[in-house]
Amino acid sequence: MTTAHLIKEIRRKKSFLCIGLDVDLNKIPKHLLQEEDPIFSFNKAIIDATNHLCVAYKPNTAFYEAYGIKGWKSLEKTIKYLNENYPEIFTIADAKRGDIGNTSTMYAKAFFEDLAFDSVTVAPYMGKDSVEPFLAFDDKHTILLALTSNEGAFDFQTKKVDEKELYKEVLSTSKKWKNSESLMYVVGATKAEYFKEIRKIVPNSFLLVPGVGAQGGNLKDVCKYGLSDNIGLLINSSRGIIYASNEMNFAEKSAEKAKELQQEMATFI
Amino acid sequence: MTTAHLIKEIRRKKSFLCIGLDVDLNKIPKHLLQEEDPIFSFNKAIIDATNHLCVAYKPNTAFYEAYGIKGWKSLEKTIKYLNENYPEIFTIADAKRGDIGNTSTMYAKAFFEDLAFDSVTVAPYMGKDSVEPFLAFDDKHTILLALTSNEGAFDFQTKKVDEKELYKEVLSTSKKWKNSESLMYVVGATKAEYFKEIRKIVPNSFLLVPGVGAQGGNLKDVCKYGLSDNIGLLINSSRGIIYASNEMNFAEKSAEKAKELQQEMATFI
Repeated sequence: MTTAHLIKEIRRKKSFLCIGLDVDLNKIPKHLLQEEDPIFSFNKAIIDATNHLCVAYKPNTAFYEAYGIKGWKSLEKTIKYLNENYPEIFTIADAKRGDIGNTSTMYAKAFFEDLAFDSVTVAPYMGKDSVEPFLAFDDKHTILLALTSNEGAFDFQTKKVDEKELYKEVLSTSKKWKNSESLMYVVGATKAEYFKEIRKIVPNSFLLVPGVGAQGGNLKDVCKYGLSDNIGLLINSSRGIIYASNEMNFAEKSAEKAKELQQEMATFI
Repeated sequence: MTTAHLIKEIRRKKSFLCIGLDVDLNKIPKHLLQEEDPIFSFNKAIIDATNHLCVAYKPNTAFYEAYGIKGWKSLEKTIKYLNENYPEIFTIADAKRGDIGNTSTMYAKAFFEDLAFDSVTVAPYMGKDSVEPFLAFDDKHTILLALTSNEGAFDFQTKKVDEKELYKEVLSTSKKWKNSESLMYVVGATKAEYFKEIRKIVPNSFLLVPGVGAQGGNLKDVCKYGLSDNIGLLINSSRGIIYASNEMNFAEKSAEKAKELQQEMATFI
């Protein structure tokens, strides 16, 4: 999917909501556990109930890998279901991969070709040749970790490297990489005041923003400092939406939560 | 597996060789492509031929994920085969994972419980709470990226943070984390002169060293600066061993290559 298409969808739906499909079998409604593939059944119900309110879905691969081959099958069914039924949706494999060149190419094939996601999250620690293999794919997007939403972000990301913080060094250095126009960045919502600085370095890039909701981030503050001329934000909510209820009507309840966020977003578009 | 057990095996086999199982279907002997699971057949042959010469195997997960569910099955069969037939072998999932706390716990479950690896490689960018969930598992090891063997290592890892390079900051900071005695570190062989500095910070930790062979690193230099009182090194070779030949006798040829390295290693033990 092109960035232009994503922007068009955001304007059409008046939403820049991304829903995180981080499915834990201990947290989904008990009645789904009798299904053949409870994770896929859960995802399908959530997707069918919320797709008109969001522009992106983001399965975090850890939650699927934890269940081995069964989990990988659920992931494959979920992305296939999305691509076949909702091709207008932007899909994100939240995988946080990254390795030496020939190995990153294998990861890129796994997520862009085998699973056919539109984008994948990538860790920057190994530098240019660990990221460029992902950037080599047309109409696919690489979402680089910049400033994450967890406490550990202060261990290295905010440490000063040559007078500026490491996450700023990641932003400015990555802009020089080949096909860097396909880069997006992960920036945690729990640090809204940082967005002003970040927009000075990447004024137009899309930012994937986790941490609204369960992790305590505030949507209004993020929009105040983070919105670009072309919106430029994908705000993710996972637990706050998908675990809104574990009764029979869980999908309906998750749509209510998604709608609350979508309506707040509409005021900024 | 405990570190003491690993050290005992190194002394018994006079080897600190790790063989990387980075299996690319385009590079394995053509006759294997007729097998039901060519990747597993290849791994099994290599393992049966080389297990007496090495102390560890390291499948890189990218090479399995690139083949989707089939690939994940090959990975599962490989680790199961190793655990059932060669329980004295130290197993490494080269996965380079890392995410916020609850998500890292899912990755730890995937590799330590579901697949039953002894260790997993982890990226440090997200800091303490992204790594500690891995450290919470008894007799399992977390191998943190410090200084990698690729060109991109110079983009961020060697940049100065508060007067010292980022990779040194990763080494010293991670020593303070809970259960840090279960940490090992990835340090690329292409930068042998760095080992002297690294040993000042982590004198006894095991270092997993990629980059000997195909990537140009030199075993003698690494040993000169990197050996600790308890050996403290796992030297990895992947392509140089597993693709020694693609004839019918490929496994025998890979054992010859492994033996060359083992014999050189024996002189240092």
